[in-house]
Amino acid sequence: MTPAAPTQAPSPAAGLDDGFHVFDTTLRDGAQREGINLTVADKLTIARHLDDFGVGFIEGGWPGANPRDTEFFARARKEIHFKHAQLVAFGATRRAGGKAAEDPQVRALLESGAPVITLVAKSHDRHVELALRTTLDENLEMVRDTVSYLRAQGRRVFVDCEHFFDGYRADADYAKAVVRTAHEAGADVVILCDTNGGMLPAQIAAVVATVLADTGARLGIHAQDDTGCAVANTLAAVDAGATHVQCTANGYGERVGNANLFPVVAALEIKYGRKVLPEGALAEMTRISHAIAEVVNLTPSTHQPYVGVSAFAHKAGLHASAIKVDPDLYQHIDPERVGNTMRMLVSDMAGRASIELKGKELGVDLGGDRALVARVVERVKERELAGYTYEAADASFELLLRAEVEGRARRYFRTESWRAIAEDRPDGTHANEATVKLWAKGERIVATAEGNGPVNALDRALRVALERFYPQLAKFELVDYKVRILEGKHGTESTTRVLISTTDGEREWNTVGVAPNVIAASWQALVDAYTYGLLHAGVTPAE
Amino acid sequence: MTPAAPTQAPSPAAGLDDGFHVFDTTLRDGAQREGINLTVADKLTIARHLDDFGVGFIEGGWPGANPRDTEFFARARKEIHFKHAQLVAFGATRRAGGKAAEDPQVRALLESGAPVITLVAKSHDRHVELALRTTLDENLEMVRDTVSYLRAQGRRVFVDCEHFFDGYRADADYAKAVVRTAHEAGADVVILCDTNGGMLPAQIAAVVATVLADTGARLGIHAQDDTGCAVANTLAAVDAGATHVQCTANGYGERVGNANLFPVVAALEIKYGRKVLPEGALAEMTRISHAIAEVVNLTPSTHQPYVGVSAFAHKAGLHASAIKVDPDLYQHIDPERVGNTMRMLVSDMAGRASIELKGKELGVDLGGDRALVARVVERVKERELAGYTYEAADASFELLLRAEVEGRARRYFRTESWRAIAEDRPDGTHANEATVKLWAKGERIVATAEGNGPVNALDRALRVALERFYPQLAKFELVDYKVRILEGKHGTESTTRVLISTTDGEREWNTVGVAPNVIAASWQALVDAYTYGLLHAGVTPAE
Repeated sequence: MTPAAPTQAPSPAAGLDDGFHVFDTTLRDGAQREGINLTVADKLTIARHLDDFGVGFIEGGWPGANPRDTEFFARARKEIHFKHAQLVAFGATRRAGGKAAEDPQVRALLESGAPVITLVAKSHDRHVELALRTTLDENLEMVRDTVSYLRAQGRRVFVDCEHFFDGYRADADYAKAVVRTAHEAGADVVILCDTNGGMLPAQIAAVVATVLADTGARLGIHAQDDTGCAVANTLAAVDAGATHVQCTANGYGERVGNANLFPVVAALEIKYGRKVLPEGALAEMTRISHAIAEVVNLTPSTHQPYVGVSAFAHKAGLHASAIKVDPDLYQHIDPERVGNTMRMLVSDMAGRASIELKGKELGVDLGGDRALVARVVERVKERELAGYTYEAADASFELLLRAEVEGRARRYFRTESWRAIAEDRPDGTHANEATVKLWAKGERIVATAEGNGPVNALDRALRVALERFYPQLAKFELVDYKVRILEGKHGTESTTRVLISTTDGEREWNTVGVAPNVIAASWQALVDAYTYGLLHAGVTPAE
Repeated sequence: MTPAAPTQAPSPAAGLDDGFHVFDTTLRDGAQREGINLTVADKLTIARHLDDFGVGFIEGGWPGANPRDTEFFARARKEIHFKHAQLVAFGATRRAGGKAAEDPQVRALLESGAPVITLVAKSHDRHVELALRTTLDENLEMVRDTVSYLRAQGRRVFVDCEHFFDGYRADADYAKAVVRTAHEAGADVVILCDTNGGMLPAQIAAVVATVLADTGARLGIHAQDDTGCAVANTLAAVDAGATHVQCTANGYGERVGNANLFPVVAALEIKYGRKVLPEGALAEMTRISHAIAEVVNLTPSTHQPYVGVSAFAHKAGLHASAIKVDPDLYQHIDPERVGNTMRMLVSDMAGRASIELKGKELGVDLGGDRALVARVVERVKERELAGYTYEAADASFELLLRAEVEGRARRYFRTESWRAIAEDRPDGTHANEATVKLWAKGERIVATAEGNGPVNALDRALRVALERFYPQLAKFELVDYKVRILEGKHGTESTTRVLISTTDGEREWNTVGVAPNVIAASWQALVDAYTYGLLHAGVTPAE
């Protein structure tokens, strides 16, 4: 079988020159993270997001070694038209004692059709001996042969020197010989990998500078985050002359993770003033970070630099009062540059200034009424003590605020009682049924519905009961549902907090419920969700 | 009222000299993190953990500004006998135009009884003008007056220069004048704070070196993590001559967070070879990190450097086979140095080498039976595709493994059916009741129980039904219960994954259940939990 021709010319990414590479390895190294398990469809979706973000290279996996990765390359060639990125296949140097031209793993790399190939090579003497079980000379020959062969087949080649920094400490001359061999055989970039992640920035900078001076190779950096310094290590390598950075979205990767793509490119663009992404891409960063988290099925890290929902959230009363004077004094950048926003948090630490600002944000006029603001602060304290969290439930907070401002809660219906039954039958099937008894517009309504779980059954019964009075409910959809056990030491006897996200197709809102059990907590959050939705749909409260 | 006398002599921490300070501000700055809300009891517990860990200073809060913090200092003086740490009260310089000796906030600092006081001072010209609304000269006078007064009252004084690095960029001479004034008035350490967190290591190093040379003051560093570089920034300041590092446990703090205490001290002790903790403390790091997360009611970050459960977890098939040769080749440190352990992850990426290693870890002999190992790999793939995760549920994995090895599942009872009812009554009370129908040792058992939620009721009914047959059940306690919605885009209609942690008082084990609804998923995880517990209690399966 003849290797497939590259699908894209190995040319610089559109709009950016080849002088600096943003190389993403989320689909290969990022997928090693505990808890991540990607399907081919997931990988295609992530590749599209990364291309939208404008990275120069997307390492898609190891074709041949993993059937899913082989399929990914086949489908990516057909299904994705990349705007910015080039697709990269990852693989190893040929087997010891063989020939690259006859190595099935090397053939699979060519057959992937990827225009760029990253080869992983050993550069640590003990790894050559213990893991590869070959001689130091044969390892150099494996690098030379494999790089030359792939170049002769028209591919661009990058070489990842695995365990480079540990290897450099053990035998600097041998580690440099691997770099020199790869460079002389035609590798465009030789990447120094801190595979075990144990390095600190000063060490990285010193080694990169020396290797650059001694070999003349174009160098890249691949940092793991085991010391908590992967971002800084990547930047230290750039300071020392590296012009190719390997990162993963949200820092996903084995053990602690890899250098996080987002703070690395944000630092390069904002702090260094170096253009590494297409025009306008940085402002998409928060959205793309969250979208990728969604695809890999991990909650986006709330405290991630630049893109976390908490990254520009202010809680301290001290800061809150000063932020009224000038927000720029309390933020290192304007959050809109990375597509994020400033948020004021409601919390018993925040005090009045925050509540007033939050009221303004929600469009509720507190009219400088100090007694009213104090009452709201009290009420928030009391509820947060009971386990509610308004930081994550703006809609429930707005209902609380309006209830204080208007003197009573807005209500579209009144709950008399409800009951949910979950059943596992002798034949193995499940039944879930809920009954609600409500009052709306002076009428008593009893409604029953089934669902695929007790909360879903309650949600449906509530809709059955109310849709006649409030047809707007049909538009509301529950898009997320989170359960948190508040006291970790009591198992199923703990207090439960439920957070619900609801959408009307245009905007999304979050509500909270707290109770000793998950069903009762869910009911509260559901009632708040529908009350808020009806309020913002302009419906007049019935009671 | 006469200020209380300091409870401890302001002497160096036991066993370590005063030349280098590990200063923890979890209780003050860490508490600013979104989602953290500490009670006084929480603060006392955390202070004990930090003292056990051996930090030199524990900043407890802002007495006077916050009634809870005032109470914390009063109770800490009575209730805690610190072994290593000194307690620090945080406060601001006196008001503009007043006198430190007459300032009520300064008085509250003395009344806290803390032997050390950290004063926050403005060092950025615009902050002096816009936030403090005073003159640059008066700000210097406020620093001088407050430091001198507290020194005269016998307290050791540290000065936090807020927004120092931004201030230095705006007006380096003024920023340095604040440092010089604090130093000359008697502050022992002047801390340069990157309050907005926007700095990178190279910038920090340059400014610290210059300020040190120009002022002669002893310098400390306080870094926020907004660029993802707080650990590296802290180390860069140490490289440049700072001898006092301010950190928080697990990096808790406002916005993205603060420099994380654990990777900072691990780097200093392991990478720098600098003794900054008492003998033996580093090996307690993982335990203390998790214990503090427990107190603040946040799930410990699985991917935290050094202490995360994933920090030494290996997933890649490539690595797994090489780790059999020599684990040290794939870890930057021996995890036992920080009280962590290496783990092999079960996952469809891991392949055979991992399953074999995992079997060995669990004491299940796979006897080199390749067909059996392949069958287990298949089964794991199939179950993980359905939503199970064995990475976090070792006990469920062991049951799966044993079922394959032994040809059938171990069973202590068989489920005929169950039913759970959750009810909200017209009078506002809740009722939760569950009925189970089971078979054990040839007998059919029907049992009903109430609980504070439907899962708790099911758990109790199961115990009622089985305790006669298996009295060992009485010892089992559910200690944690987690619910995860697997497909984020379907609200209450999603697949639900439940993870349960159970203990017998000696060891803890984790089980998993997956189903369209939370009750059914919980039931599966409960059944696995009790089956595993009985198996390890040496009870012979009934069926």
